[in-house]
Amino acid sequence: MDSNVTCLHKCNIMFIRNRSILQKGEHMEFKDIVAKRYATKKFDGKKLDEKKVGELFELIRFSASSFGLQPWKIKVVADQATKDALAPASWNQPQIQSCSHLLVFCANTDIKGLIDNYENYMKKSGAPADAIKGYIDMMRGWEKGLDDAKRLSWAQRQTYLALGNAINGAKALGFDSCPMEGFSPDDYAKILKTPKNIVPTALCPIGFAADTPKPKLRFAKEEIFF
Amino acid sequence: MDSNVTCLHKCNIMFIRNRSILQKGEHMEFKDIVAKRYATKKFDGKKLDEKKVGELFELIRFSASSFGLQPWKIKVVADQATKDALAPASWNQPQIQSCSHLLVFCANTDIKGLIDNYENYMKKSGAPADAIKGYIDMMRGWEKGLDDAKRLSWAQRQTYLALGNAINGAKALGFDSCPMEGFSPDDYAKILKTPKNIVPTALCPIGFAADTPKPKLRFAKEEIFF
Repeated sequence: MDSNVTCLHKCNIMFIRNRSILQKGEHMEFKDIVAKRYATKKFDGKKLDEKKVGELFELIRFSASSFGLQPWKIKVVADQATKDALAPASWNQPQIQSCSHLLVFCANTDIKGLIDNYENYMKKSGAPADAIKGYIDMMRGWEKGLDDAKRLSWAQRQTYLALGNAINGAKALGFDSCPMEGFSPDDYAKILKTPKNIVPTALCPIGFAADTPKPKLRFAKEEIFF
Repeated sequence: MDSNVTCLHKCNIMFIRNRSILQKGEHMEFKDIVAKRYATKKFDGKKLDEKKVGELFELIRFSASSFGLQPWKIKVVADQATKDALAPASWNQPQIQSCSHLLVFCANTDIKGLIDNYENYMKKSGAPADAIKGYIDMMRGWEKGLDDAKRLSWAQRQTYLALGNAINGAKALGFDSCPMEGFSPDDYAKILKTPKNIVPTALCPIGFAADTPKPKLRFAKEEIFF
């Protein structure tokens, strides 16, 4: 943590002193990214540079996932009309309409399809046939043991790894974000016309903050690590 | 991505050319952390410096979570006897016994307890009474609508945000990690004697790698973003 960030150890709250440092972004150490990232409640409405957005997409795309199966899809909403239509389905929270891009993180529950796709990618990569067979058979065996609820829960968990890269990645690239669960997944699915296996799971509006970060409240180390 | 990392765009595989750059760690940009982090299959058995481990714990502790409720606990297994006892419950994968520290990421399903604790922390922080009441009442109302399955699924999803900070954080601090789901949560709970509400969800052994990273296989951008 740099000198602009104070840890008040007694109540485990981190407070960012200097608001201006928050937008620098580039060449930030990971510990500073973690310290300075916060759930932005309002954005300034300015559009992000598309090149930067593309860089964020790469950080999301290279997230870890169980088996490397990447069971997610991300709907990118950049036009104001769609953001306006989605606002009431997200309790009219101001992030939705004031952000630059709204990323709708969806879990992909078609795990069979993902395994088939993975097999094709392995073949294209030139991996040895026996290595492909061993890995793909292992995944297919595991997939057979899942019911619908487990399929969804598993895919959603992985999606949060991608979401984590999005929120840290935005700060690393010099802008802001807000991970959000306060929305109606059913209404989002209807408005965005997503297929049944693509389940809206978390929102991540991105853009430039127009609010002041509150101190971070965290439980003491002794309450978390045992 | 620096010059040691090549993106073979045709098959969307990222390959790390120069193994030696992987351990430098410090002052790495986030895009390099994401590129160089990989699921380490075997560690060299050396112990990590406790100061570094403490720094990683801070990165995990400051992860984002829904409402800021931090519904996780992390069991830290550093002694060899416990790692040996856990190995058969993790299909004897070599990471478990060769790592420096095994972090067992558990979801905390006692959401009521977390809200009570959060309220105490807010009071200690000196937040205005009406702000505390509004926020706590809102969370209590939400919590009442959850059944056991939703409680677990929600807590597990958040836990993957903390897991994401752990795997990126380890690379940022100059060492390696492996996010793992291949283990028996029930056997882990028995061996580690965790309370019923503390549910082993993912493993994250940390240490220094003793393997060679395979190329990362990722689906094309067009298959992920829509």
